[in-house]
Amino acid sequence: MTHSIAILGASGYAGGELVRLADEHPDLEVAYLGAHSSAGRPLADVHPHLRFSQRVLGSNDPEMIPDVDLAFLALPHGSSWEPALALLDRGVRVIDLGSDFRMDNPDRYLEAYGTPHPAPEQLGSWAYGIPELFGDQIAGSDRVASPGCYPTSAVLPLAPVLAADLIAANGIIVDSASGASGAGRGLDAGLLFGAVDESVKAYKVLEHRHQPEMERALEAVVGSAVQVVFTPHLVPMQRGILSTIYARVSDDVGRDDLVAALEKAYSGAPFVEVIDRPPETRWVVGSNRALISVHVDGRSGTAVFLCAIDNLLKGAAGQAVQNANLMLGADEAAGLPFAGWMP
Amino acid sequence: MTHSIAILGASGYAGGELVRLADEHPDLEVAYLGAHSSAGRPLADVHPHLRFSQRVLGSNDPEMIPDVDLAFLALPHGSSWEPALALLDRGVRVIDLGSDFRMDNPDRYLEAYGTPHPAPEQLGSWAYGIPELFGDQIAGSDRVASPGCYPTSAVLPLAPVLAADLIAANGIIVDSASGASGAGRGLDAGLLFGAVDESVKAYKVLEHRHQPEMERALEAVVGSAVQVVFTPHLVPMQRGILSTIYARVSDDVGRDDLVAALEKAYSGAPFVEVIDRPPETRWVVGSNRALISVHVDGRSGTAVFLCAIDNLLKGAAGQAVQNANLMLGADEAAGLPFAGWMP
Amino acid sequence: MTHSIAILGASGYAGGELVRLADEHPDLEVAYLGAHSSAGRPLADVHPHLRFSQRVLGSNDPEMIPDVDLAFLALPHGSSWEPALALLDRGVRVIDLGSDFRMDNPDRYLEAYGTPHPAPEQLGSWAYGIPELFGDQIAGSDRVASPGCYPTSAVLPLAPVLAADLIAANGIIVDSASGASGAGRGLDAGLLFGAVDESVKAYKVLEHRHQPEMERALEAVVGSAVQVVFTPHLVPMQRGILSTIYARVSDDVGRDDLVAALEKAYSGAPFVEVIDRPPETRWVVGSNRALISVHVDGRSGTAVFLCAIDNLLKGAAGQAVQNANLMLGADEAAGLPFAGWMP
Amino acid sequence: MTHSIAILGASGYAGGELVRLADEHPDLEVAYLGAHSSAGRPLADVHPHLRFSQRVLGSNDPEMIPDVDLAFLALPHGSSWEPALALLDRGVRVIDLGSDFRMDNPDRYLEAYGTPHPAPEQLGSWAYGIPELFGDQIAGSDRVASPGCYPTSAVLPLAPVLAADLIAANGIIVDSASGASGAGRGLDAGLLFGAVDESVKAYKVLEHRHQPEMERALEAVVGSAVQVVFTPHLVPMQRGILSTIYARVSDDVGRDDLVAALEKAYSGAPFVEVIDRPPETRWVVGSNRALISVHVDGRSGTAVFLCAIDNLLKGAAGQAVQNANLMLGADEAAGLPFAGWMP
Repeated sequence: MTHSIAILGASGYAGGELVRLADEHPDLEVAYLGAHSSAGRPLADVHPHLRFSQRVLGSNDPEMIPDVDLAFLALPHGSSWEPALALLDRGVRVIDLGSDFRMDNPDRYLEAYGTPHPAPEQLGSWAYGIPELFGDQIAGSDRVASPGCYPTSAVLPLAPVLAADLIAANGIIVDSASGASGAGRGLDAGLLFGAVDESVKAYKVLEHRHQPEMERALEAVVGSAVQVVFTPHLVPMQRGILSTIYARVSDDVGRDDLVAALEKAYSGAPFVEVIDRPPETRWVVGSNRALISVHVDGRSGTAVFLCAIDNLLKGAAGQAVQNANLMLGADEAAGLPFAGWMP
Repeated sequence: MTHSIAILGASGYAGGELVRLADEHPDLEVAYLGAHSSAGRPLADVHPHLRFSQRVLGSNDPEMIPDVDLAFLALPHGSSWEPALALLDRGVRVIDLGSDFRMDNPDRYLEAYGTPHPAPEQLGSWAYGIPELFGDQIAGSDRVASPGCYPTSAVLPLAPVLAADLIAANGIIVDSASGASGAGRGLDAGLLFGAVDESVKAYKVLEHRHQPEMERALEAVVGSAVQVVFTPHLVPMQRGILSTIYARVSDDVGRDDLVAALEKAYSGAPFVEVIDRPPETRWVVGSNRALISVHVDGRSGTAVFLCAIDNLLKGAAGQAVQNANLMLGADEAAGLPFAGWMP
Repeated sequence: MTHSIAILGASGYAGGELVRLADEHPDLEVAYLGAHSSAGRPLADVHPHLRFSQRVLGSNDPEMIPDVDLAFLALPHGSSWEPALALLDRGVRVIDLGSDFRMDNPDRYLEAYGTPHPAPEQLGSWAYGIPELFGDQIAGSDRVASPGCYPTSAVLPLAPVLAADLIAANGIIVDSASGASGAGRGLDAGLLFGAVDESVKAYKVLEHRHQPEMERALEAVVGSAVQVVFTPHLVPMQRGILSTIYARVSDDVGRDDLVAALEKAYSGAPFVEVIDRPPETRWVVGSNRALISVHVDGRSGTAVFLCAIDNLLKGAAGQAVQNANLMLGADEAAGLPFAGWMP
Repeated sequence: MTHSIAILGASGYAGGELVRLADEHPDLEVAYLGAHSSAGRPLADVHPHLRFSQRVLGSNDPEMIPDVDLAFLALPHGSSWEPALALLDRGVRVIDLGSDFRMDNPDRYLEAYGTPHPAPEQLGSWAYGIPELFGDQIAGSDRVASPGCYPTSAVLPLAPVLAADLIAANGIIVDSASGASGAGRGLDAGLLFGAVDESVKAYKVLEHRHQPEMERALEAVVGSAVQVVFTPHLVPMQRGILSTIYARVSDDVGRDDLVAALEKAYSGAPFVEVIDRPPETRWVVGSNRALISVHVDGRSGTAVFLCAIDNLLKGAAGQAVQNANLMLGADEAAGLPFAGWMP
């Protein structure tokens, strides 16, 4: 069964991946592509890797969108809540890849973003879009907040072991390395080739908005407070996130216990796999998969989790399509790539 | 209609792409995967981006291959002629991605490779696998020599304008830049990250085997002698070839004439497009497409052609599958990607 | 003997290299650093690799410059002629790393830059700053136009063999690959990591301003018309240029003749070496050296020259300091690095 | 005053940097260069960035070394103890860049390397070569074990705050990202461009030999047990290490206290600087400097230290020369670069 979709913010990296995935999806048909400053330009101008297509970008104005079954919003922070609500009013399902509806309450939103939420009554009603953890809510909802790339890579390994009470809920450290596409396509001196190539840096140390988002997601799973310290790093590559996560374990918890909890949680999940060696980001770039490995240092009582994803797929567009599949009653894996791109 | 296939040399980069493409192809079913030193190992060990698969690699011994409709051979130079002939004897169609059957006669083979061909009587009977130029021969053949990556990028822009007598047949210069995957996965000090990253070099200057191959292919199209000077360069990226090609034009030949000849030649070709600006390799990496631009310097009487391909797809595995489609009576574009990967 | 210098445009890449080289130079003392939009900021803010220094950037206004022996101008096209003339009036020697004074006459300037020169009477009086070819003029001048990066890499191999009448003066093709630093630090979507990394492209095909500059320099050496076709390429690395140059040779000219002419021309040149294998850019990145190899295809009567330089050193700041050494009566190699940076 | 030196293992990356630094050093004169498999080859063959030099590599046999004042050994693990002892017997000072003499006792050596030390009586007599922490021992010794790259980046920020009792001595996490040169030049499939480029991975998780080395160095400073969890990562760049270090602080310890302890410890250190923003590795690549930033999360009681070094300079050859300066009575900073290489 074919479902018509619209994509706003189609000129960005995540937007481009949404177009590519939707074009290859057996059940989705792209009815509208919107953009901001690129409105009116051919799609091939902003995404030359899609240049076989003759489509032209429209604006991001939701009134321009025809009646579709579902809209993906890949817009900057603060730009999606208005079109989202307008589309919901028209009966259009909405998946927001932005950050406007990821928090569960106004206080956390204020903590993360520094301003009050413009429509605080909405915050309780959006599903948080990690299908492996919140699948039922997603399937039953018309509004889903697709998570950030870093939170996806941290919440997948942590949620099951926290829920099983195998690690401590505080003192968790998430140390992540991301390719530059995570920062988007905007003109920024820090994203020039001359600034990114051949260098590594940490940024927004102890100030990144994904830290409260991680806590919000984990608390939704475990039902009590979770405390995370988060350091994102920019590394010289296009795609991919590797999160190295440290948590305290008690003496009687071993690697087997942690692996068992993860394997049980993800036994039916097509895109999450626990593997027996440290994953490399290149193994998942191009794929919607998340690869997790588990290591325990008995001496210090520390568990180390490694999780690799493609920040633009499982961390953005791929997970959004996975959410759409659930919302539209399609197979969860429909149209999503398992194979990555190597070399 | 499903066709069973075998892939020998499945552990290399081109072999891995063949596996990926075949898995995603609607009409192909992989019945056997062979490898040399990796025989007996899980596919996921050598291609961790395909690690969702449980398959195990067999050997490259053709006797181990079950009865299949077609075999892809992605083997080193000199290693495919024996399995190819054995498979043909059993009635299996063969596409050789290696270099054993690309030449049209024993003399040219000797010039290119420095040794006599071990089965010289074969050389006249193999089709040269550029579907856009030799489609009829390919469709009617049970043995196809899939071309080298550099020749594909040079022959596509040159053949139609040479055939239309718009450029001189000598004095042609092909200056190509390739990503490192073109050199394969072998352990070679020159392919270490420390040797490739942040550097450009020319190699095998005036000695590369692809120069006689280019001449062989162009002569097959135009029916008379063609002379090419070829310089390959290694640039610090994984995939992609950009060939910058210089040829002499007479005063009465303009850019429009060249473009018209190319557009006419490729009007029905799904994967070749003439564009109005210089193509970047990233626009085609991940895609089976070739993008060509044309520029003319009237002052010096020089035409400049730029051609960008993915060396592992249109330059290797993608073109091989395109050949398979023709040989098996499938749609030429079946199972082949149009969209590239960006960023 | 110590000479005081000023550097305008110190915030750019070439400007930063000038600061670094001058700091390490035994005879130069930096008296003033100027910048445009970064005026007033600490040097360490714009060049964090120089952050041990406490200096602050002034403006590019030449009136702010104290009385110095020599000024380096590393300013955008069209921005150096006014401060250059003002400084010369004050008796300050000027080395312009920009393009305002590189042409030898107003017509060529118009051809290259599309506008009339603002001070055309100057064009005959500036030395063209390749010390190995125009050393006497440079040593005797108070105004030197330091060449572009691409012209340096093309003129060094071509000038001696053209002067010795060993190659044809037309039909010369210069095909160059450059790292991204050649395009500067400006905010440009085409210079984002996402646009440069893992891709190769040609740009300004048949339209680049360095083509007339190459002809101007070669004609100054050989005394008659020279015609060049030039294609620059951007490759994913920070520094380095490799130029691959094609020229026609008659049957009686062999590789030995070309090598002999080059070795004779550069026998006393500390920074130019003819080597017996294709040079890689990484061998010269960090060094002021130019490495040249020579190859001849007797079949087609084609000579191939390869020349590798560091675009920011021999192609910009290093060569400017080499010019300064000559103008100030210092040793030509004073303060200039021979060793490159590897890996 | 000139001191003659020998360098064994001159063909590796650290060895090449030693040659480059020694050549530029005012007081050092290279009397001998040794190599293993490259013995007998010109230096320019293995280090083409040094190709202006006519030197030829000798063997690593210490008997071939003339009487020199000091020998640098840049040899693989287990290969330096014999030549070191032979040279010491001859009265030659030795700086071992390898790992044979870094541990303080046989038990720790066994823990780190899995085999008993071949000359255990030596372990107490070697100085551990971080000049900022063990300068007096180094200056007074004829044998110095130059530290590993990762330990240098972790010990510099941690030692002063541990010594001042500002952070807890257990629960310390060192999460490091390194460029590929840290793994050397050996032929290893994991170091091919195709394996390293565009990917991030952790390796030797909880098993890396630098973890006991970090503890050994920190314990030597603080005089009591220290416990570290260490995860190294390989990122796609040539040089540079960024270590992100997490430690527990009590409520009454703030960022200012930590900064003050570090600034006091390094007030006279020319190469260590505490800065007010997260350092990027590119700011120190090419330089012998270490840049440190300090961040405190009061909520969780976590201090985060970032430390960036060039793994081949402050992490290897630069620090070795710094040690040599102390041992030979030269200025600590003699011949060592402050400026880095950008872009």
